[in-house]
Amino acid sequence: MGKPRNERDVVESIERAFRSTRSSALPLPLGDDAAVWRPSPHKDTVLTCDWFLEGTHFLRQKHPPDAVGWKCLARAVSDIAAMGGKPGCFLLNLALPDRLAGRWLAGFLRGLRRAARVTACELAGGDTTRREHILIGVTALGEVAPRRAVLRSGARPGDLVYASGTLGEAELGLEQLRRRQTPPRTASAALRKHLYPEPRLALGHWLAERRLATAMMDLSDGLSSDLPRLCAASGVGATIDSSLLPLPSLADRRRALDLALHGGDDYELLFTVRPRKAALLPAHTRGVKLTRIGKITRDRKILLQEANGDTSLLCPGGWDPFRTR
Amino acid sequence: MGKPRNERDVVESIERAFRSTRSSALPLPLGDDAAVWRPSPHKDTVLTCDWFLEGTHFLRQKHPPDAVGWKCLARAVSDIAAMGGKPGCFLLNLALPDRLAGRWLAGFLRGLRRAARVTACELAGGDTTRREHILIGVTALGEVAPRRAVLRSGARPGDLVYASGTLGEAELGLEQLRRRQTPPRTASAALRKHLYPEPRLALGHWLAERRLATAMMDLSDGLSSDLPRLCAASGVGATIDSSLLPLPSLADRRRALDLALHGGDDYELLFTVRPRKAALLPAHTRGVKLTRIGKITRDRKILLQEANGDTSLLCPGGWDPFRTR
Repeated sequence: MGKPRNERDVVESIERAFRSTRSSALPLPLGDDAAVWRPSPHKDTVLTCDWFLEGTHFLRQKHPPDAVGWKCLARAVSDIAAMGGKPGCFLLNLALPDRLAGRWLAGFLRGLRRAARVTACELAGGDTTRREHILIGVTALGEVAPRRAVLRSGARPGDLVYASGTLGEAELGLEQLRRRQTPPRTASAALRKHLYPEPRLALGHWLAERRLATAMMDLSDGLSSDLPRLCAASGVGATIDSSLLPLPSLADRRRALDLALHGGDDYELLFTVRPRKAALLPAHTRGVKLTRIGKITRDRKILLQEANGDTSLLCPGGWDPFRTR
Repeated sequence: MGKPRNERDVVESIERAFRSTRSSALPLPLGDDAAVWRPSPHKDTVLTCDWFLEGTHFLRQKHPPDAVGWKCLARAVSDIAAMGGKPGCFLLNLALPDRLAGRWLAGFLRGLRRAARVTACELAGGDTTRREHILIGVTALGEVAPRRAVLRSGARPGDLVYASGTLGEAELGLEQLRRRQTPPRTASAALRKHLYPEPRLALGHWLAERRLATAMMDLSDGLSSDLPRLCAASGVGATIDSSLLPLPSLADRRRALDLALHGGDDYELLFTVRPRKAALLPAHTRGVKLTRIGKITRDRKILLQEANGDTSLLCPGGWDPFRTR
């Protein structure tokens, strides 16, 4: 692939990468003023958009282009998983310097196409422009049965709090990546989780279909930042039991706990379940471990209970680009 | 409005600005992982996304914040007009430096809310982050009756080519803006068109409903850049009659013609009509002037016919961020 001369060539690179993936939900070919989206009959459309910006969300020198492509879509699709929806299509806003419109773009599109295939989410359209830094905005659409979307606002006092997978692993992977001088050739499990997070689509859909989750969200900024959002939307508080948290494998337990509480980018699901339905939850399902990590309380505080029974306020320590540090 | 401390405050400023505008098409309140979009029964969804970036599409020192808010939505909605659709909702990706999260953001949201009200397009959700330059990505959704969307690909040899409004006026307005030292207090018609373009929604919908337009797109990059795209999608060429073009009012006719051919940002509609249906098109409709400017040809060239009968190739001179200059 040569170095594109103009916007048309960039657009053609993108269209070529996604040519074979049109479906009945997207009846038009790419390239008109707008796309037409036709979800299954009697389904609502779920929609979400996410930034993925060089220097803010990824580093050009550290993150392989195919990981940038994978992750920009995976994190948008993770929001659809968190509603219990099924992905359908996405729009890509892409800005890049023209010296990256050859090899870098090809790698990016490879990762993006793989994510699109794995999550069954097709390219519907987008907008491209030239810019000194790589800027990506992804809008993802999915479908969900009416009134079956799982909101953040449905948790009630007494509900049990669950998390999927392991918490803090992606942050551990990011630390490993930061220490390296060049993009990695082989990756640890933690680094893979940071570079290629897997949205918990099957789990989210299963929890929504069976009406098991009363509230749900995905963990993108870290448990200590995201749990208060779920609790605020529901008008409740929560107590997290530190001894129950699914920690990353580290000799230093204090550090593993810190990662699990505050590490971002895991894209695991955080959800609540009525106690009488807890027996319906297996320890593993859809290839993912499920762990009860605490319970919802009437008191609106977010508390952390230590193994020795001490409790303390859990303060947000995760990702917030606007926080004054 | 004080200076926001963190992302939550920025999100709350946005949510406050749009609180009163929820409808049955958007059954959920703002702020969950994703929005739910429920178009009218038996309608397809039309979707499009557009960049609007500081330094690329607008200048912070020159463009008033409310014009940035208005225009970022208006240009996305213009793509829905170009399909013959009706707007429904939009998602806002917004990145800005935190020193702009007070007064600038308030002005931006004022313009955005006005555009949302005028175009009947509600805020459905979005993503915010901190960034040195203002970055905006808007995804707009609308609805259209099945198989009624007007594509770029329907033009046939012999069809007449039409444009709405005046061409080149927005580029003239941009030139006026560039010459000023401070944001304008009073604006000429051309400057207003550059700052607050009005998407041709009523016209686009009318042309689609009556099946009058065989192909349609909006003029965002300039006639000489956009017409070849419509022709390429349709597998045809076109001859434009320079004496018919709706020019901006300028003493220098050569310069007015240059603006009409190559000026961007007009957001007028370019469309084609079968000759036998041309009599159904009034000179004005839905508050907009309609002008026949040429015809579609079998020969795939894009030609400009001068008043004296000479013809020449019309080469793209409009906006292309990737063009090597």
